[in-house]
Amino acid sequence: MCALGKLDPMTNAANTHWVLTLVCKDMPGIVHAISGAIVAANGNITESHQFASDDTGRFFMRLQIESAVPREHFEKQLAPVVERYQMDWVLDEVGRPMKTLLLVSKSAHCLNDILFRQRAGQLPVEIPAVFGNHGDLASMAEFYGVPFETHTISTDLSKAAGDKAAFEHMLRDYIKAAGIELIVLARYMQILSPEFCAEFAGKIINIHHSFLPGFKGANPYGQAHARGVKQIGATAHFVTEDLDEGPIIEQNVLRVTHNSSKAELVNIGQDVESKTLTQAIRWFAERRVLLDGHRTIIFS
Amino acid sequence: MCALGKLDPMTNAANTHWVLTLVCKDMPGIVHAISGAIVAANGNITESHQFASDDTGRFFMRLQIESAVPREHFEKQLAPVVERYQMDWVLDEVGRPMKTLLLVSKSAHCLNDILFRQRAGQLPVEIPAVFGNHGDLASMAEFYGVPFETHTISTDLSKAAGDKAAFEHMLRDYIKAAGIELIVLARYMQILSPEFCAEFAGKIINIHHSFLPGFKGANPYGQAHARGVKQIGATAHFVTEDLDEGPIIEQNVLRVTHNSSKAELVNIGQDVESKTLTQAIRWFAERRVLLDGHRTIIFS
Amino acid sequence: MCALGKLDPMTNAANTHWVLTLVCKDMPGIVHAISGAIVAANGNITESHQFASDDTGRFFMRLQIESAVPREHFEKQLAPVVERYQMDWVLDEVGRPMKTLLLVSKSAHCLNDILFRQRAGQLPVEIPAVFGNHGDLASMAEFYGVPFETHTISTDLSKAAGDKAAFEHMLRDYIKAAGIELIVLARYMQILSPEFCAEFAGKIINIHHSFLPGFKGANPYGQAHARGVKQIGATAHFVTEDLDEGPIIEQNVLRVTHNSSKAELVNIGQDVESKTLTQAIRWFAERRVLLDGHRTIIFS
Amino acid sequence: MCALGKLDPMTNAANTHWVLTLVCKDMPGIVHAISGAIVAANGNITESHQFASDDTGRFFMRLQIESAVPREHFEKQLAPVVERYQMDWVLDEVGRPMKTLLLVSKSAHCLNDILFRQRAGQLPVEIPAVFGNHGDLASMAEFYGVPFETHTISTDLSKAAGDKAAFEHMLRDYIKAAGIELIVLARYMQILSPEFCAEFAGKIINIHHSFLPGFKGANPYGQAHARGVKQIGATAHFVTEDLDEGPIIEQNVLRVTHNSSKAELVNIGQDVESKTLTQAIRWFAERRVLLDGHRTIIFS
Repeated sequence: MCALGKLDPMTNAANTHWVLTLVCKDMPGIVHAISGAIVAANGNITESHQFASDDTGRFFMRLQIESAVPREHFEKQLAPVVERYQMDWVLDEVGRPMKTLLLVSKSAHCLNDILFRQRAGQLPVEIPAVFGNHGDLASMAEFYGVPFETHTISTDLSKAAGDKAAFEHMLRDYIKAAGIELIVLARYMQILSPEFCAEFAGKIINIHHSFLPGFKGANPYGQAHARGVKQIGATAHFVTEDLDEGPIIEQNVLRVTHNSSKAELVNIGQDVESKTLTQAIRWFAERRVLLDGHRTIIFS
Repeated sequence: MCALGKLDPMTNAANTHWVLTLVCKDMPGIVHAISGAIVAANGNITESHQFASDDTGRFFMRLQIESAVPREHFEKQLAPVVERYQMDWVLDEVGRPMKTLLLVSKSAHCLNDILFRQRAGQLPVEIPAVFGNHGDLASMAEFYGVPFETHTISTDLSKAAGDKAAFEHMLRDYIKAAGIELIVLARYMQILSPEFCAEFAGKIINIHHSFLPGFKGANPYGQAHARGVKQIGATAHFVTEDLDEGPIIEQNVLRVTHNSSKAELVNIGQDVESKTLTQAIRWFAERRVLLDGHRTIIFS
Repeated sequence: MCALGKLDPMTNAANTHWVLTLVCKDMPGIVHAISGAIVAANGNITESHQFASDDTGRFFMRLQIESAVPREHFEKQLAPVVERYQMDWVLDEVGRPMKTLLLVSKSAHCLNDILFRQRAGQLPVEIPAVFGNHGDLASMAEFYGVPFETHTISTDLSKAAGDKAAFEHMLRDYIKAAGIELIVLARYMQILSPEFCAEFAGKIINIHHSFLPGFKGANPYGQAHARGVKQIGATAHFVTEDLDEGPIIEQNVLRVTHNSSKAELVNIGQDVESKTLTQAIRWFAERRVLLDGHRTIIFS
Repeated sequence: MCALGKLDPMTNAANTHWVLTLVCKDMPGIVHAISGAIVAANGNITESHQFASDDTGRFFMRLQIESAVPREHFEKQLAPVVERYQMDWVLDEVGRPMKTLLLVSKSAHCLNDILFRQRAGQLPVEIPAVFGNHGDLASMAEFYGVPFETHTISTDLSKAAGDKAAFEHMLRDYIKAAGIELIVLARYMQILSPEFCAEFAGKIINIHHSFLPGFKGANPYGQAHARGVKQIGATAHFVTEDLDEGPIIEQNVLRVTHNSSKAELVNIGQDVESKTLTQAIRWFAERRVLLDGHRTIIFS
């Protein structure tokens, strides 16, 4: 949309579509300053979201910008602004596939939904590998041409701790080597260590069934059935040391009746889980998920 | 639909539309036996629901039947069947307004929805009175021509217990005298005594906000806001001694975003509360809600 | 949030919360220019939405701004920007009740929802009058303290045209005299003249039942019932000369079954109609609805 | 649940779970008669739905029955009842996979959903083949171990008619030979001949996008985008000679905004299409879909 005449004469690159996220202390003048840098980079804003949090006093912004200047030039224009406002910021290309590692166990519903939509071009992620603590889903990964590795965690408790430590050690190395940006627990039934969760805080997404109202303890579908709930839900959230208490990214529900057996509740739960997890991944990969303390800001 | 020629010659009454609910131990032959009694009463089944509970081994049935025979004649046909299967049963007329007492405090959203729909002919209840522990909603009740009484519960703790006991005493008398069949806590913010709840078990419906996942303790909207929930829900349930843990009748949710202030969460919560409570009342008044232990069977 | 020290020394007014909407040809630099004017007015942006339409090449923006400067001062800062970009713009106060006239016939469901929510503080409108072509809803308006006038349109076709012309003549005068900003057809069953619709284009909101798929012609609920639709919907839209083909503001659906009689479909339709119309009014009154040719932009 | 002692002494077969559907003219006594036959076959009703249509005067019933008697014995008990009431009836085994043929073109979303859920045990169908008029989806069928055949229809209009005739000829033979019970057009973009549609009326399910309100003519997503619809829907229906006007089985919608490009509308449309088609197939395969003239009765 930018006429060619406006382009920086030093470059003849075609337009790039950038996504820019910014987080800083809320104060007047931020939008003016940042939009000034964008004008100076010959950029045209094509999408913009912002939010000022009353809870934390933080300001959040996500912009999509078309511009033909090279990255260094763009960053040079942004530098004084992000400096002045002490911004956390990321400049990325719109649509660049985010490197995503999937951890799975035996349940196929989330994996199928993610791989199918990735292949169908509806999910901007690149999936270099799927790791399972069981081998059951190897053939599904293979069909979609994604390498699968089985990393068994022994059910023998005396060996499990060692297996886990070794797995997490390998995982750290792999994440670094492969440049993984997002780790998705697609019904991965092992608990990651608090240290691992802390190290990759805000980078691990989990999916969890949820009910109205909540049920604590074991066998939640059994409890839900026993009390005759009418809605089955799922919550996609960031993993924190507190297991399933991390910041919520997305939630959905589906209606059930007294007629639904516990097995049917589980099936319906799987539908809502896969839909919810895939949505959370899409938003994360599009850099639409920002953290405001323990809450998420979703610029969808 | 019954041809006149089929009618019992002893009566020339027009057709009545009956609703019949039955609960008994599940065993073969129930439907045949009950449908035999209906045929003998010259009845035509216009609606039928049944459910056999794997959890409790109980059988549940709700029938609507057109028949021109008088009630005694119908009951005479049913008597040997309900005896043989030791059924809990109720025979009522379809559409007969159920006598319903509303208890309220200051929030108007549930009361408005109930009274408007009652007036609009969408809710088969008769409301002889609204009792409030505050007088705020008197004018709304008046507009709809429903008597309103204020029964204050002192905020002085030394007097509150006495006020409550007196209120519940009056309530018991009123319920008996007025033939109240259903008590609705339409955002009534006082806790009824365990004895009262036990005495009217299965006759008191309450509405309660609900979240995915649940939050325990005070200030739930604040907690929900703090964790950034994406769905706000409500649960209509029977009141039991365990406060908000009674059998669930209906649940709904509405979507919210990070942008919703706590005040907006409360507003959205009110919408879902009034819709959910009204639906629960409608089903109860139509005798579509049966109890299977701690679960409800909803024949909607 | 603006520190007092930043205030224009000529004023000691408390902060005002402004809403500013802008529409112009899309081009680079708009955001920078407008945010510059806001900085110059000591403003702090608290909410911001923007959208560039690929269809029409137009740029749309809605801002909420806290500022303590008086209106003239703010407008003075905006003047050169709106001039340069040839913007259509409106500067209003957040929460200022919009003057809204309701036209009704006999159906109460939409009127009740609007009046109740207005009274409950959930709908930022001021309703100086309700006009009905029947008197049925006078008592409901009265309860909420809103003047009601009956303006009958004769069912005698030879007189109807004259009645309508007289009504619209009176309406025009009233709208001017009372400063009406929004006209809501809350199930008003008379057709307004093309001239009237054209004169108040973008200022009249209607509610209309909608089905999946659509049904043309008379008796749509009958047609929907005959084909066994599973979803009943409603569309709130601006009124244009093409009757129900105007730009869509909001749509919702509710699920129905084969078991729903035509009368029940109508009841369910009323629920979805009132909910949808109220939402459309709220967005309009909050200046969240902008027109992009035949589409609406909803900054919700 | 039937004690063994109740079994017909001539058989020692384990219990079979039967599904029985019945359609006949509505009249009193049907339920009693049919339940009598079930008692005589030592059957226990585990699920029951019935509906009397005011539109057509027809009575519809679907029963699930546990019984240990062999099929011939059961049918012998039913014979006089179905004779007397001139019932259309089907007796099948619960969970027996229904032989289902899928026709596809290039779009993968419906095929993936069907094959994944069939494999996951959530869809009681057996899929002996997928036929495509393009070869694009062959590898997906292969992954799930389902034979795929390409049956090209020439784009050369002079040859297309012949190709179609030959394809439908082959199809008829295949359907007979393979015992196909259900044909699913899983985004099959060719039009079947009126003769073929008539021959297999009530056996072919199609999926079609749907909007609120409907749009006639070409490029519906373009039209929907142009008018700014807020809900995108899909309708699964039986195929009749009138193309997309056949009886509706299931409908769903998803919310969209002004921000959704036409491409995103199409993606969202695909989600709601696959979900809706799969649900329709499940209900059909479970014999929960009965036809009442141009409407469906869904016993879900």
